[in-house]
Amino acid sequence: MCVFCRLVAGELPVAKVMETEDVLVFLDNAPVNPGHMLVIPKKHLATLEELNDELLGALILKVKEAGALLKTKLGYSGYNVILNNDPIAGQEIPHLHWHIIPRVLEDTPLRFPEKKYNPGEMAAICEKLNS
Amino acid sequence: MCVFCRLVAGELPVAKVMETEDVLVFLDNAPVNPGHMLVIPKKHLATLEELNDELLGALILKVKEAGALLKTKLGYSGYNVILNNDPIAGQEIPHLHWHIIPRVLEDTPLRFPEKKYNPGEMAAICEKLNS
Repeated sequence: MCVFCRLVAGELPVAKVMETEDVLVFLDNAPVNPGHMLVIPKKHLATLEELNDELLGALILKVKEAGALLKTKLGYSGYNVILNNDPIAGQEIPHLHWHIIPRVLEDTPLRFPEKKYNPGEMAAICEKLNS
Repeated sequence: MCVFCRLVAGELPVAKVMETEDVLVFLDNAPVNPGHMLVIPKKHLATLEELNDELLGALILKVKEAGALLKTKLGYSGYNVILNNDPIAGQEIPHLHWHIIPRVLEDTPLRFPEKKYNPGEMAAICEKLNS
């Protein structure tokens, strides 16, 4: 059983913030900043593509609530919402989890190196996506 | 008018991938990797807290569709979904936008420095969030 399934099953201690029939919200125990939360489906599903629309809708409402709590209860002024979808994107536990990460001025900004499209490349990509 | 409102209004060119009455999906022109998309509400709203649940639900369904397109149409095997909510979290344009970022093996992994809670701190934070 994966570590998040064990949390859901009550086999491991969890700092629970919110819970519904289908969703669990809890504190990450290796936080980027205190209050860093994870929002997960109780059912073991790995990626966004495996979620049905109803469950996805339920999860994202809790993501929104979790972010609001960081502001109202902990006094933060902003946060990142991050989903690492698949191992190549940095997903380490194969049970879908949204990170809600409160951010402070002292943090290193979240930045990726940006690329440029070659002439015509952007239009070609757009055409493929629309095909 | 903000740059995304100008895209929505047709005042600036946009590589459109999907569009509904309320949502626009288009290619970021400074991509982390080719196919990097942005999913935005057409209405000028800055943060997650300003979205009503219905619009949030409509946006997240398009996020899911956009991610699936990266796999089915462009052959990627994973992606990050990122929302920078508020300037302190790296939001540069004050119009809410979900990044859908395809990732490849050569990329630097997305990693934040992790902290540890002091004894009792995690329980105290959890209590505040639940108060």
